[in-house]
Amino acid sequence: MTTRVDTQRPSRRGLLRVAAGAGAAAGLAGGVAEAQGNAENLPPNLPEWSRALGPGVIEEPYGTRSRHETAVRRYVPWLTPDRISSVSFTPLAEMQGIITPSGLHFERHHGGVPDVDPADYRLMIHGMVERPLVFTLEDLKRLPTVSRIHFVECPANGGMEWRGAQMSGVQFTHGMLSCSEWTGVPLKVLLAQAGLRSGASWLLAEASDAAHLARSIPLAKALDDAIVAFGQNGEAVRPQQGYPVRLVLPGYEGNMWIKWLRRIEVGDRPWFTRWETRTYTDLMPDGLSRQFTFVNEVNSVITYPCPEKPLRGRPGFVEISGLAWSGAGRVMRVDVSADGGDTWRSATLQDPVLPKALTRFRIPWEWREGQTAYLQSRAMDETGRVQPTIAELRNVRGSESIYHKNSIQTWLVDREGTVVNVQIDA
Amino acid sequence: MTTRVDTQRPSRRGLLRVAAGAGAAAGLAGGVAEAQGNAENLPPNLPEWSRALGPGVIEEPYGTRSRHETAVRRYVPWLTPDRISSVSFTPLAEMQGIITPSGLHFERHHGGVPDVDPADYRLMIHGMVERPLVFTLEDLKRLPTVSRIHFVECPANGGMEWRGAQMSGVQFTHGMLSCSEWTGVPLKVLLAQAGLRSGASWLLAEASDAAHLARSIPLAKALDDAIVAFGQNGEAVRPQQGYPVRLVLPGYEGNMWIKWLRRIEVGDRPWFTRWETRTYTDLMPDGLSRQFTFVNEVNSVITYPCPEKPLRGRPGFVEISGLAWSGAGRVMRVDVSADGGDTWRSATLQDPVLPKALTRFRIPWEWREGQTAYLQSRAMDETGRVQPTIAELRNVRGSESIYHKNSIQTWLVDREGTVVNVQIDA
Repeated sequence: MTTRVDTQRPSRRGLLRVAAGAGAAAGLAGGVAEAQGNAENLPPNLPEWSRALGPGVIEEPYGTRSRHETAVRRYVPWLTPDRISSVSFTPLAEMQGIITPSGLHFERHHGGVPDVDPADYRLMIHGMVERPLVFTLEDLKRLPTVSRIHFVECPANGGMEWRGAQMSGVQFTHGMLSCSEWTGVPLKVLLAQAGLRSGASWLLAEASDAAHLARSIPLAKALDDAIVAFGQNGEAVRPQQGYPVRLVLPGYEGNMWIKWLRRIEVGDRPWFTRWETRTYTDLMPDGLSRQFTFVNEVNSVITYPCPEKPLRGRPGFVEISGLAWSGAGRVMRVDVSADGGDTWRSATLQDPVLPKALTRFRIPWEWREGQTAYLQSRAMDETGRVQPTIAELRNVRGSESIYHKNSIQTWLVDREGTVVNVQIDA
Repeated sequence: MTTRVDTQRPSRRGLLRVAAGAGAAAGLAGGVAEAQGNAENLPPNLPEWSRALGPGVIEEPYGTRSRHETAVRRYVPWLTPDRISSVSFTPLAEMQGIITPSGLHFERHHGGVPDVDPADYRLMIHGMVERPLVFTLEDLKRLPTVSRIHFVECPANGGMEWRGAQMSGVQFTHGMLSCSEWTGVPLKVLLAQAGLRSGASWLLAEASDAAHLARSIPLAKALDDAIVAFGQNGEAVRPQQGYPVRLVLPGYEGNMWIKWLRRIEVGDRPWFTRWETRTYTDLMPDGLSRQFTFVNEVNSVITYPCPEKPLRGRPGFVEISGLAWSGAGRVMRVDVSADGGDTWRSATLQDPVLPKALTRFRIPWEWREGQTAYLQSRAMDETGRVQPTIAELRNVRGSESIYHKNSIQTWLVDREGTVVNVQIDA
């Protein structure tokens, strides 16, 4: 045993690549392709970054990610060739745990991202209240606050898939989904200050962007768990997520989480804005639309393996990993199938399992080269709701809608380990 | 009731500023100073950002915060005038909830931040093992993983305060403290692959930076909850936190969470590296050093109000808010005093309260202009340990150490609402 650890260099002899050695011995790894690398940096050599001082704390008030990670992106070049669009997607295949880094949060907007000056920001509460009120941002920050970890999902997530598998990866089938720790004032605190008038039963929440997106919200939801949020993952809400203030409606579809929140009007019936009539309604097979589908129901997707993260050259042990969520409460169970739904095994859920939050699930599996598999996950929430198959969902809902598709996703792992988006029971 | 919500403009008459109106009525707000603002943007006017399209999704693979938030910074100009240093601090006064945004995570390094090429990254496990192993980053990512929310704290947090109150704000008294969701392989999985030899009882973990920081770790900790982490808050570990791989030792002092982790050697006794002899030892009054102080014991601090967030011009309702943590497990209770410890009230702890994670506490209070207050928080963890006063701590530990100061912090709120760092029982 030496104490001169700084120069400790095990000999190359005696070191095993995990792939060829103990990994196989432990039944965990198989024929891993020899990793690329600059031999100068590999053991027993000290890598070049060990041999010279790195930069110190440079004049960088806010840290950035490694330059080697810039391929992980929400912006999608082929989707937005003219560099302007109204949607970006969270790269779920690259995500770990349940927190979405704010820089990779999906975004969806209808009038671009407004540049709101926090000094000029105001929130109005008016309508059927005793005392119409205007709050500054500082007013809001002085009030009682809560912090909650919740997912937000656009109801159009998976919208291209109603008529068959179309998107090439999980970033596009499910990537309008993110999860953050939100901090703000419970909406019920603000409503108590304003004083609800008798008969009040609905709210209108309106954005201050150019689109003035506005949605009707049942008063019961506002008095339950709605938050007027100024914090996201420990800091100010990001501009694309509604800086400085967005409405958080846990479990409700994302467009109702009004961003750049300008006003809340109290009334006694829904407003039927263009955002809940012309759009964001579920078109049924009979040509009628469902009137208000607020909750994103129980859903899940496997994020490893997936089309962006295939198994090619990686036979042997696989930890299947994915995300489950429900707008109705906690995820209770996630079952995983490798044979297209004939047989199922229950996955492990990562603690803490929080209501209306992403839940990470994991389950060990083994893939042999030449083996075809149809991977599926099926989540159940605490209300007992279970994800339907696409056939079951289409049987009830038809294929005219682009919203609220929560059916079981199938990834085909082919003989070479390529992973493809398919629908096996369409 | 109108459905033309886009042009809805309540008249100026009928709107109340919360400060002068219902806030006071509800007992929540007092004489709030009239907020600044550009009248053109204030209700009933539509603000300028409501009247034109904002930018769409620009060619930005990774989102950034609002340009109005750049004053919130970890880099501290007065501390690092030459633009290079080895420490930065999390601005705790600006933090919300429990997650620290990775861009504001504190940093401490002794040889600068190495630029590790992930393709050349290797982790060696050797020493008293059956099978010495080398893992690539891809090898690690294929193994069973866990995600856990844990704080990390430099033991020198508060180090300037042993001999009296010296630092001007909570960013400096407590800002070497952050909390993230970490994802990676349990260290026990790697050790099982390598196979521990009989008699193994300690590990050495060594960094691949130029400083080669290395620490001895009891095997029992490695087999308990240690994680070889490649994920931080949902994405790759940041360079300043050890990209691509850092050791996570929940509850243990931050310098043991070896960054840019290069190797783990298994042995049967501690190594007594320079990092656990010359430095990171607690010097006692008798001139001897404590041999290994691994755990950051129970601690807490009020982050609102604090020197950076005074009460000037904001009398009335105050939600006192702060952070509590313990390296020994869950925080069980946080008591708050406004009179320097004569009387205490228990604060509300924000769910979920997780072991070895930051816990947000909140408690309502009222401050009257002209009132002097000595604000303190005192946390107790699930082992029954309670934060000591600075006098109690100094009585046992003296004032020669710069490490592991977990005593009760006092903020003096003076008659004008300025908040000052003081020690009332020194």
